[in-house]
Amino acid sequence: MKTCIHRKKTRSVFIDNVQIGGNAPVVIQSMTCTDTRDVKATTLQIKQLENEGCEVVRVAVPDEEAAASLLHIKHKIKIPLIADIHFHYRLALSAIKNGADGIRINPGNIGRSGLLKIIEYAKERQTVIRIGINSGSLEKNLLKKYGGPTASALVESALNNLAFFQEAGYDAIKLSVKSSDVITMIEAYRELSKKTDFPLHLGVTEAGSLMNAAIKSSVAMGILLHEGIGDTIRVSVTGNPVSEIGVAYGILRAMGIRKIGPDIISCPTCGRCEIDLCKLTQEVENKVAGMKEYLKIALMGCVVNGPGEAAEADIGIAGGRGYGLLFKKGQVIKKVKEKEFAETLLNEIHSMVAERKET
Amino acid sequence: MKTCIHRKKTRSVFIDNVQIGGNAPVVIQSMTCTDTRDVKATTLQIKQLENEGCEVVRVAVPDEEAAASLLHIKHKIKIPLIADIHFHYRLALSAIKNGADGIRINPGNIGRSGLLKIIEYAKERQTVIRIGINSGSLEKNLLKKYGGPTASALVESALNNLAFFQEAGYDAIKLSVKSSDVITMIEAYRELSKKTDFPLHLGVTEAGSLMNAAIKSSVAMGILLHEGIGDTIRVSVTGNPVSEIGVAYGILRAMGIRKIGPDIISCPTCGRCEIDLCKLTQEVENKVAGMKEYLKIALMGCVVNGPGEAAEADIGIAGGRGYGLLFKKGQVIKKVKEKEFAETLLNEIHSMVAERKET
Repeated sequence: MKTCIHRKKTRSVFIDNVQIGGNAPVVIQSMTCTDTRDVKATTLQIKQLENEGCEVVRVAVPDEEAAASLLHIKHKIKIPLIADIHFHYRLALSAIKNGADGIRINPGNIGRSGLLKIIEYAKERQTVIRIGINSGSLEKNLLKKYGGPTASALVESALNNLAFFQEAGYDAIKLSVKSSDVITMIEAYRELSKKTDFPLHLGVTEAGSLMNAAIKSSVAMGILLHEGIGDTIRVSVTGNPVSEIGVAYGILRAMGIRKIGPDIISCPTCGRCEIDLCKLTQEVENKVAGMKEYLKIALMGCVVNGPGEAAEADIGIAGGRGYGLLFKKGQVIKKVKEKEFAETLLNEIHSMVAERKET
Repeated sequence: MKTCIHRKKTRSVFIDNVQIGGNAPVVIQSMTCTDTRDVKATTLQIKQLENEGCEVVRVAVPDEEAAASLLHIKHKIKIPLIADIHFHYRLALSAIKNGADGIRINPGNIGRSGLLKIIEYAKERQTVIRIGINSGSLEKNLLKKYGGPTASALVESALNNLAFFQEAGYDAIKLSVKSSDVITMIEAYRELSKKTDFPLHLGVTEAGSLMNAAIKSSVAMGILLHEGIGDTIRVSVTGNPVSEIGVAYGILRAMGIRKIGPDIISCPTCGRCEIDLCKLTQEVENKVAGMKEYLKIALMGCVVNGPGEAAEADIGIAGGRGYGLLFKKGQVIKKVKEKEFAETLLNEIHSMVAERKET
């Protein structure tokens, strides 16, 4: 796996102990879909997100009861906690008071006097604030000026609000300019990245259910990250957010930006395939799910591309009729019967990972 | 939905009646995973692919019996049929004789004298040939020269073979330089596109199971198509190829390249969500699956971004507590009870589509 990404150098902020921007790796975020007032359910979901590799989590704080819950949630989780605030500046103050490591505000729906109160309190605690511009809630004057939530309208909103925060003496800030339209989103971040060096949080908003969200986010973030734009990402899925994390790592792994988790390459089982590759792929994928070590694992169904591809992988099986060849770093290790493919491969994977940890 | 793609102008070829390259839309291809000798199973899978919107289909032709099947398959399907040939040039001749509209060869495993025989016969029938270079089966001298299947090695192989075909007087050709490594694949197509104007078939090879393949293909094709590179695409999935088509359309829709099928935007059900949005999204997605009309449908769970986003969509629901507002092109049509969301929305969608067809 190679990369040819030159990430744009941005300022950095720290959300608790997690650095975003500067020379930090691209950070993966998510957001709970539980009722934040339900401490037990929210904590459980955050722990599931942590297990998948989520690095920063955001929770909705629609009322004071939700803000009060943060105190209890914060003590039970390991990753930094961000409060998502809309409409009421007081909720931001309560969230910070109750331990939020960062807050996300949508300045389009909080008045300037409220923002000043948030800034004042955030200064005391050095709470990172994301100015989260969203195509669905742009200021009316900008919608009028640009005739709709265009990329330039999103960028102007972000920069106006950033200037307001900087004038008020605050710069522990990251920015986002999300749109549900992939091309608008790409153009907005590209323009914003040219005009500021504050760290950028990438996301396609309202991206739909898992597969739609994966496609839209992969296209949008792929293009931007390839241009060096983006310091933290969130894949938004309608449904359980735990599934967002695998997609996010998949994008970063495909780009060669972060080598975390197994990279399984497997051929599309054409009419030449002589083994049950779908079954093998599912079995191996399930067994290595959650593995954090980067390994390129090749599962090849035929002799045409199999040996060549498997030789490029850390480990692989090239299957023939009822048997296969197990490769490790290009060297044939042994001949394996088809029914022993998964077990043999998984045993080898576990010893490779164990060896790495020893050295 | 907008686009900012300026597609690179390429030569065009016709696979039966489907134009690839030139000013044609980006064409969506797939490949069966059935045994091509099983005419019934292969025809059934091709019909399923056609129903999903597949525009060109490829089948493996590993032996003469498979080549003979093409005659029977070809008569039962509507879309152009391509034969995938490895090792034996005679299989290409048989496939063309039996009605293949195009063939894909991997010149790395067919000798030059065999290629000349293929060219001679293809000339008579004007059969389009894809020179399909693959990182897993590059010529040994190139692997040695470049130290592995690098982007430049893939491109040199494609151009060498293209020159051989052109010297032999044949140019009904498209090219592919597939790699299982996303960045290598991107670099290879980018370099190839600079050096030739023959139409390009994009694909990440051995991309894995559905979600992995969707992520890798979306990243890779997203970046290339955004740069104007690519005339036809195939998303390779380990598993039923029918699932490839939705991903391919999803990529093109996200890029604003082809407006086919419903674009569902739905918010990520945060703690503010007051309706069962997951259920609604699943229900609506299932009901509109297979719809070919482009419509932007917004399913929003709360009052924060809902009304704004839904106003941008062709039609949408912004849900509150137990009720929602149905929008059409930014205008509120009616207030709807939560349990009637899906039915009301689907009825409206069907009348919108019917109205469009009348005008």
